[in-house]
Amino acid sequence: MNVLVTGGAGFIGSHLVDTLVDKGYRVVAVDNLVLGRKENLAHLSENTQFRFVEMDVRNLQGLFNLFREESFDVVFHLAANSDVQQEAIDTERDLELTFLTTYSVLECMRLSGNRQFVFASSSAIYGETEGLLDEDFGPLRPISLYGAAKLAAEGYTTAFAHNFGIKVWICRFPNVLGERATHGVVFDFINRLRKNQKELKILGNGEQRKPYLYVRDLVDALLFIWETAKEPVNCYNIGVEGVTEVTKIAQMVVEEMGLSNVCFRYSGGDRGWVGDVPRFAYDTSKLSGLGWKAPRSSEESVRIAIKRILAESPKRIIQ
Amino acid sequence: MNVLVTGGAGFIGSHLVDTLVDKGYRVVAVDNLVLGRKENLAHLSENTQFRFVEMDVRNLQGLFNLFREESFDVVFHLAANSDVQQEAIDTERDLELTFLTTYSVLECMRLSGNRQFVFASSSAIYGETEGLLDEDFGPLRPISLYGAAKLAAEGYTTAFAHNFGIKVWICRFPNVLGERATHGVVFDFINRLRKNQKELKILGNGEQRKPYLYVRDLVDALLFIWETAKEPVNCYNIGVEGVTEVTKIAQMVVEEMGLSNVCFRYSGGDRGWVGDVPRFAYDTSKLSGLGWKAPRSSEESVRIAIKRILAESPKRIIQ
Repeated sequence: MNVLVTGGAGFIGSHLVDTLVDKGYRVVAVDNLVLGRKENLAHLSENTQFRFVEMDVRNLQGLFNLFREESFDVVFHLAANSDVQQEAIDTERDLELTFLTTYSVLECMRLSGNRQFVFASSSAIYGETEGLLDEDFGPLRPISLYGAAKLAAEGYTTAFAHNFGIKVWICRFPNVLGERATHGVVFDFINRLRKNQKELKILGNGEQRKPYLYVRDLVDALLFIWETAKEPVNCYNIGVEGVTEVTKIAQMVVEEMGLSNVCFRYSGGDRGWVGDVPRFAYDTSKLSGLGWKAPRSSEESVRIAIKRILAESPKRIIQ
Repeated sequence: MNVLVTGGAGFIGSHLVDTLVDKGYRVVAVDNLVLGRKENLAHLSENTQFRFVEMDVRNLQGLFNLFREESFDVVFHLAANSDVQQEAIDTERDLELTFLTTYSVLECMRLSGNRQFVFASSSAIYGETEGLLDEDFGPLRPISLYGAAKLAAEGYTTAFAHNFGIKVWICRFPNVLGERATHGVVFDFINRLRKNQKELKILGNGEQRKPYLYVRDLVDALLFIWETAKEPVNCYNIGVEGVTEVTKIAQMVVEEMGLSNVCFRYSGGDRGWVGDVPRFAYDTSKLSGLGWKAPRSSEESVRIAIKRILAESPKRIIQ
C-alpha cells in the first residue's frame, strides 16, 4: 500500500510517517518546509520504503504529477498552518496554508481518482460554545481564523466525498504535545525557561483548561480510525481523559527541569490570545465505541511530552 | 446611512437595493455582472441616492478604495455563485465566487474599520442530515460545493466577528423565487415550456420537497433581522410555512401558463442533481420569536413567483 502524508516533515506528520513506515507501508511525505523540518525525517533518508518530496501542496500541477506518478491508496492530509497565534498579524496565513492546501489536495484526489482521504481537523471548529462537544454538535462558530479554515476544509471534504465518491475520515484533534513540536504551551515554557530560569511568562490567567494528547497516541488513534471506521463520511473527535490547567503545565515543566523559585508572570485575561478557546471538553464516546481509548490521561500526556521535549537536543529550540 | 450591497445587480441583490432605496438609504451596489444584470437596476440610473459600481469584489484593492471613498455603515454581502448545478463541471466556481468573495469583503471591513456585516448564507450548509433544522443544528456536512463554500464563509464570518469586532448577521436563505431570477425551478420550467409546450423535463423523480420563499418577503426578513437582532453574532434561518413538491410546482406553472396536456418527463432518481438536498424543513421558531413570519406559505410563494416571472418580458428568459 502506497501512502501520501502531506505536511509529512511537520511535528505530527513526521510521527505519522514513522508509524506508517514501521507498519510496512510505502510512504511519500510532501512538505513545503515552512513549518516542517527535514531533520524530522533524516533517520529515514536511506529507507527505500520512504520518499520525501519538497513541494507546496497548493502547487496543483506539481501535486497532480506526483499523484499520477505514485498512485496513492490513501492520503493523510496534515499540511496546515499550526502556528495559530500568527493570525493576529496575518489573516491570509490560514486561508492559504490550512484551507487552500486542503482544496488543492481534494482537487488532485478528484482528478486522479484517489478514493481515501484522512483529514486532520481540529477542536477549533467548535468555537467557544458551551457544552460537551460531540461529533454532531452544533452550532459550529469558530473564533479563530485557524478554526474557520479547518471548518471550511471540513465542508469541502464532505462535499467532495458526496460529489466524487471519495471516502473520508475527518479526525478532530485536541491539543497535541510531544517531541518535534515547534510551538505550543510545553515547547514555549521550556524555551522561555532555558533563556530565563527566574521568571516564566504565561499567556492569560493560567486557568485555561484543555485536553492534551501525546503525539504518538494521536497517531495511533488516527490509524485506528482509518482502519476501523467504514462509513462513506466518518467524523471522530480524538480525545483523552481529563483536561489540564495551564498553570499546572507550568508547574510540571519547572519540576521536570529541576528548577525552583520560578516566578510565574501572567499576561492576564481569561484566554491566551484573541482566538484562543480557553476551556473545552470533548465527548469521546464515539471513538471509544469504535474501540480506541487514549492510554494516558491529559496530565500523563503533558508529563511524557515534557520529558521527551527535554530529551531532544536543545538546539531544536528556536526563537 | 450609507449601505453597500455586493451582488447588487443580481436576482436577490437588486430587490434588496430597491427596498433600501425605498426606505431612504443611500445605496451602493457592486457587481461583476457575471450573474447580475444592469437591467435589474436600470430604473435607478437617475436616482441620486444610488450608485452602481461594476467590480469583482475579489479585487481587494479596488474594493478597499471603494470602502475608503464611501464609508459604509453596513455591508449586505450577497455576491455569490447562485447557479449551484454548475459545480458538476467546475469545482473552482464556488470557491471563487461564493467563498473568496466573502473573504475579500471581510478583509476590506477589517482594513477599513467597518463594523456591520449582513451575510447571505444558505440552507445548503446543513447538507442532508435528517431533522428539523434549527440554527444550532449539527453536524454541518454540506453535500454541494456551494454549501461547502457558504459554510466556509460562515466560519470566516464568525472568526472575523470575534477577532476584529465586526457585528454580523448570518441569514440562512431557503429556496428563493421571483422575478429577475436567472435560474431555479420555476424559471427553468417556464423557460422549457416556452420552447416546448408539449413536454416538460423534470430533474429527479419530482418528489423533492423544499420550502420556497418569495424574493420580496426574503428581503423584508433580511432587513428585519438586521434592524432587530442585537447580538455580536446573529444567526437566523429565514423560513416559510410548508414545503412544496417539485411536481406540484410543475402543475402550477402549466396552469398559470394556460397550457394543457403537457407530458412530464422525469430524469429519475431522488434528487435533481448530485449536490441537491431533496427534502429539508427549517425550524423557523427563532425568527418568529424575534417577530417576523413570512406573509405567504411556500405554495403561495411559488404561485406569486410564477405570476411575476410570467409578467416579465419573455426576452429575459435566456438559454
